[in-house]
Amino acid sequence: MDSKTLHVDAGNGYDILISPGILDGAGARIRAALPAARRLFVVTDSNVSPLYGPRLVASLEKESFQVHTHVIPAGESSKCASRLVELWTWMTSLGITRSDAVVALGGGVVGDLAGFAASTVLRGVGLVQIPTTLLSQVDSSVGGKTAVDLDTGKNLAGTFYQPDLVLMDPEVLDSLPDTDFMSGMAEVVKYGCIWDADFFDFLAARPDRRSLMGDIGHILYTCCDIKRQVVNADEHDTGLRMILNFGHTLGHAYELAGNYTVWTHGQAVAAGMVAAARLGVALSVTQADVPERIRGVLAPLGLPTSISAAPEHVRRAVGVDKKSAGDFVTLILLEKIGAVRPVKLPRDQVTELLAGLDGR
Amino acid sequence: MDSKTLHVDAGNGYDILISPGILDGAGARIRAALPAARRLFVVTDSNVSPLYGPRLVASLEKESFQVHTHVIPAGESSKCASRLVELWTWMTSLGITRSDAVVALGGGVVGDLAGFAASTVLRGVGLVQIPTTLLSQVDSSVGGKTAVDLDTGKNLAGTFYQPDLVLMDPEVLDSLPDTDFMSGMAEVVKYGCIWDADFFDFLAARPDRRSLMGDIGHILYTCCDIKRQVVNADEHDTGLRMILNFGHTLGHAYELAGNYTVWTHGQAVAAGMVAAARLGVALSVTQADVPERIRGVLAPLGLPTSISAAPEHVRRAVGVDKKSAGDFVTLILLEKIGAVRPVKLPRDQVTELLAGLDGR
Repeated sequence: MDSKTLHVDAGNGYDILISPGILDGAGARIRAALPAARRLFVVTDSNVSPLYGPRLVASLEKESFQVHTHVIPAGESSKCASRLVELWTWMTSLGITRSDAVVALGGGVVGDLAGFAASTVLRGVGLVQIPTTLLSQVDSSVGGKTAVDLDTGKNLAGTFYQPDLVLMDPEVLDSLPDTDFMSGMAEVVKYGCIWDADFFDFLAARPDRRSLMGDIGHILYTCCDIKRQVVNADEHDTGLRMILNFGHTLGHAYELAGNYTVWTHGQAVAAGMVAAARLGVALSVTQADVPERIRGVLAPLGLPTSISAAPEHVRRAVGVDKKSAGDFVTLILLEKIGAVRPVKLPRDQVTELLAGLDGR
Repeated sequence: MDSKTLHVDAGNGYDILISPGILDGAGARIRAALPAARRLFVVTDSNVSPLYGPRLVASLEKESFQVHTHVIPAGESSKCASRLVELWTWMTSLGITRSDAVVALGGGVVGDLAGFAASTVLRGVGLVQIPTTLLSQVDSSVGGKTAVDLDTGKNLAGTFYQPDLVLMDPEVLDSLPDTDFMSGMAEVVKYGCIWDADFFDFLAARPDRRSLMGDIGHILYTCCDIKRQVVNADEHDTGLRMILNFGHTLGHAYELAGNYTVWTHGQAVAAGMVAAARLGVALSVTQADVPERIRGVLAPLGLPTSISAAPEHVRRAVGVDKKSAGDFVTLILLEKIGAVRPVKLPRDQVTELLAGLDGR
């Protein structure tokens, strides 16, 4: 595939570079984007570090960066406040300065945690995202959201902070387990649902990993381009950006129901999108064929299209959902594939509707 | 005194209201500034809470806000990561939404900590600052800096986050111990030094607390107005704002030398300003009479004008100072009273100069 570059206007503006093998050229790309940086603080996890850490560090040192590396345990449980403090202490004990930068090498957990640390240590240093999962490539590396989980819920503390550079190497996806790859595909399908019916059909025609990887450059580019357009219009998540939450409100309920261990985020979102489509049909917002069309794309990928959640989990998901403000919740529904319609409803009514839907 | 209002253009723009007794009108002011807020999360400390907490809460409840209050132990040791996590957990367990707001009632510790929490919980909620010390009124409530201390040093993690409203009640200063009042005066004198020779002379003519309090409205307004001009020109602390650090590099060394317990921040800055003036004279940057003029204003207020610090503390202060970037440090020197000149020097040379100066 060819190399592709997207420019995002949020923050000071930054480039997303999509290119096979770009991991080995990271040093030169970072040097160009952050000419004043002397030291790079690489944050990665125990799965990714042995696979790609040495190649990245070699590329950085070739450009004469002084490189420090910190490896966190793989998994969502690392996305917590105590790891955030650990990163702050690590970087400041090594004397990080404001012209230095953090490099996040890993999936969404690493990107969210390292991004939060970069945005707050010395009140903000440079940040380079190198997402290594499909989910983080199409979702969490674009848009500038950083976060940690709290005991009270997921992503409840964080910042809006744009990276200086995003490097996306499609080749690293080859090492991704099928479950993780397909979880990422749930977010890929979401972009088709909310924004681009042609892209949805393009995905429908590629019902397996091999055929998807054959066009992965186009897929990554299209998803990032859609998210870029949405984020450009709504950097601080007060309006349009909420359409990116299609499938996520019930998805959160499913994640809660499985205590975040039974279902991956992508699996929960997959079932959440089908449920949101069914809800839209019930509310006469969504065309009748939409739930089955979405199901028809997700099922061949091995993604769940229906999950049960107890009413208490639905209530919690709606209650702590950050789309909510006061008594109302905005549900993201589809009119048809490629056309989204946010619908603002009383929080109580949403809870009932969703709980009722789930019980059918 | 009359009420005074300053508008600050940083962030979304906000007002600073300076008015005696405004504590009792806080509810109406906040309602006007944050019409969508339903719940207010008041953060205060164990010294301030019994003095002003009930009056504030009564004023807020009169406007039908639902008010939650969290009291942290008074003192710098509360400005830490674990208190930050405590605030996040408290607010999210009560179901805070993005249209709600945090109200910081207290000095710089409360303002910095609560501001950091407000800027990061749900990636940012409303923020009202009600500073109750002279230092926080003239310094930390204007400019949008939030922070916590780490084991590795002071203010090493934080955000830039502008409040929605700042309420300043000069009457609350009456309950301030002399030491704290005079520490705040060090920062007041700083504004005269770096920006306004007439204001410096105005202060020189008021060598005691009683005469200063007679004109406290003018003093608060003038300091905030100067800081506003500086911050407006440099919201993210990359240039002009560094002039606000006059006296602070050596001040940090003195604070370190006393392990942050011997000298208050203001006392350390007072001695730091005199030392910086002496250094400026030694470098032929500063007019010869400046050190004695500054000393002449500070000494009658009971502020120290000379403190010893070991070379190791000077090195640490210069090394972790966030004004530094790479090998160079920018020292803030004066040409004369009211005229500042930043001078960029190799970090090693600065350490030597400062250590040498201190040994005289």
